[in-house]
Amino acid sequence: MAKRIGKYTVEFENDTGIMAAAGVAGKKESEGPLGEEFDKVFTDTKMNSDSWEQAESSLQKEALNMALQKASLQPDDVDYVFAGDLLNQCIGSTFGLMTLELPFVGMYGACSTMALTLSMASVFVEAGIAGRASAVTSSHYCSSERQFRFPLEYGGQRPPSAQWTVTGAGAAIVTKGGEIKINHITTGRIVDLGVTDQNNMGGAMAPAAADTLMRFLKDTGTSPTDYDLILTGDLGRVGSELLYQLLEREKIDIRENHKDCGAMIFYEDQPEVFAGGSGCGCSASVFCSHIINRMKKGELKNILFMATGALMSPTSCMQGENIPGIAHLVHLSV
Amino acid sequence: MAKRIGKYTVEFENDTGIMAAAGVAGKKESEGPLGEEFDKVFTDTKMNSDSWEQAESSLQKEALNMALQKASLQPDDVDYVFAGDLLNQCIGSTFGLMTLELPFVGMYGACSTMALTLSMASVFVEAGIAGRASAVTSSHYCSSERQFRFPLEYGGQRPPSAQWTVTGAGAAIVTKGGEIKINHITTGRIVDLGVTDQNNMGGAMAPAAADTLMRFLKDTGTSPTDYDLILTGDLGRVGSELLYQLLEREKIDIRENHKDCGAMIFYEDQPEVFAGGSGCGCSASVFCSHIINRMKKGELKNILFMATGALMSPTSCMQGENIPGIAHLVHLSV
Repeated sequence: MAKRIGKYTVEFENDTGIMAAAGVAGKKESEGPLGEEFDKVFTDTKMNSDSWEQAESSLQKEALNMALQKASLQPDDVDYVFAGDLLNQCIGSTFGLMTLELPFVGMYGACSTMALTLSMASVFVEAGIAGRASAVTSSHYCSSERQFRFPLEYGGQRPPSAQWTVTGAGAAIVTKGGEIKINHITTGRIVDLGVTDQNNMGGAMAPAAADTLMRFLKDTGTSPTDYDLILTGDLGRVGSELLYQLLEREKIDIRENHKDCGAMIFYEDQPEVFAGGSGCGCSASVFCSHIINRMKKGELKNILFMATGALMSPTSCMQGENIPGIAHLVHLSV
Repeated sequence: MAKRIGKYTVEFENDTGIMAAAGVAGKKESEGPLGEEFDKVFTDTKMNSDSWEQAESSLQKEALNMALQKASLQPDDVDYVFAGDLLNQCIGSTFGLMTLELPFVGMYGACSTMALTLSMASVFVEAGIAGRASAVTSSHYCSSERQFRFPLEYGGQRPPSAQWTVTGAGAAIVTKGGEIKINHITTGRIVDLGVTDQNNMGGAMAPAAADTLMRFLKDTGTSPTDYDLILTGDLGRVGSELLYQLLEREKIDIRENHKDCGAMIFYEDQPEVFAGGSGCGCSASVFCSHIINRMKKGELKNILFMATGALMSPTSCMQGENIPGIAHLVHLSV
């Protein structure tokens, strides 16, 4: 039975874990350091469909289908799907997953979605409500770029703090007895330190990451060195540095065992990726392939997965609002 | 402890219930049949803020604050907020609730959001993860109209099947021992019967309502007459009629004890409301004020609250996609 420990953290005691996961990605991602790790790579940005939005939906469907395949399950063997994405009204999830005909819980956590959906799926399994529950999310460079920034044809220039939205998706299936145990979740609060620069999302999200991590460490009475890896979602290189600085003020040093999916997914010198990858699909594709693979091999035994999201829209930015962030944490072990 | 009964329904056994709720609304809603029922009415569409989007955020904040006040609670007494709305990237919830500094679970269910967030809040309480959890959502006519349809100044004409997005919000606080018990939840599947008309959202959502209700009745072995009221969210008059027809094919008759929040919130002859109200704030404001009030008075003892959502975006519609629907059901009793 799950129970709250401290003020913000839930401890799982019911043998809940990930039984299978899959990460899929696009061409640029396949040319990065993790290219060989993805379960499937798509070189056609439209994936034989009519639009980038349809392609993003296909990414979610492919990721979940591959995870089901790894677990030797049919869609009907899963009791709930928790999913969301960056597209307006989360249409990536709707049109990607509707043909599965499963109970569907739509979620919105911006780029924190993989950790958010994984948390919720875990709670449903832990509470005995779901036998198996899946967590899915995606992003697509082209659908994001034209929705949040400019038409691709415009060729907008971006500063070094900008990040490249990952074309990719991830899906995980949670069940009792799952090989990769879920030990704790800490659900994030919305944190706003006044960042307004849409080209510095990592900077906007770093304060939320610091907030959630500090609350988790306090609630569990642990320190960063207790974990093999503290994995953030898509702070990128700029946001990661800011996270270190914020934590150092509180005398917490994570430099030695921190990695960020946004910094991992691309080589620093890949064209135009600047501060690294971003988007729901960034942490989703890296976590559900590379990280899960390393945990299954025993190379990583005890990790914190903390995906961050920037809770903004083009409208809120144009209206002069700040860009608040949120970070959700999942503690996993083998 | 919650348990699954049948294939789709969760039965609650842990005395989980709503301890307090509040519904707030705008001027047009205050002139409807339920005008006296709302906990607060705002006649200024911008609520003294700079934009309709900020006003929508204020609606959420006001609704939750009023619910907290009724329960004699401070924000910090609540462990989780489950919230979402119709605005791109759910900014209504972000900017409405961020100052509360509570663990925040962002959700997207379009107009089904009140039932979705209430379901999730109930699961967290039932599982012992939250002592108290709140469910919040909103919509605003002006922010919705310009995002989904046309600039207000354009004065677009609409057909009789069109609905009027409610300016309003609702918030409920769930806890063990809450006065209004939550007995079951049934989480919806995405259902697409091929409706493409953006001016007939009720029609697009009715098939999902039929699907969820039939699954609930089958799982619980009950019939519509076992309930004082089957309350749908915002099918409106057109969608409600379609729901009756779909259910009659399966020999299920709900005409006698069905009501729809969209049909209830406006008088039929109120200007331009046509088939009725819509939006997340429609079922939220009606359920969290009028319906909860009637349950507290004992006028309603055993009800099904089933809010429906149309899972579309302007982009998906322009790209020729259908408008799939979803419906989430919560069974409540006193």
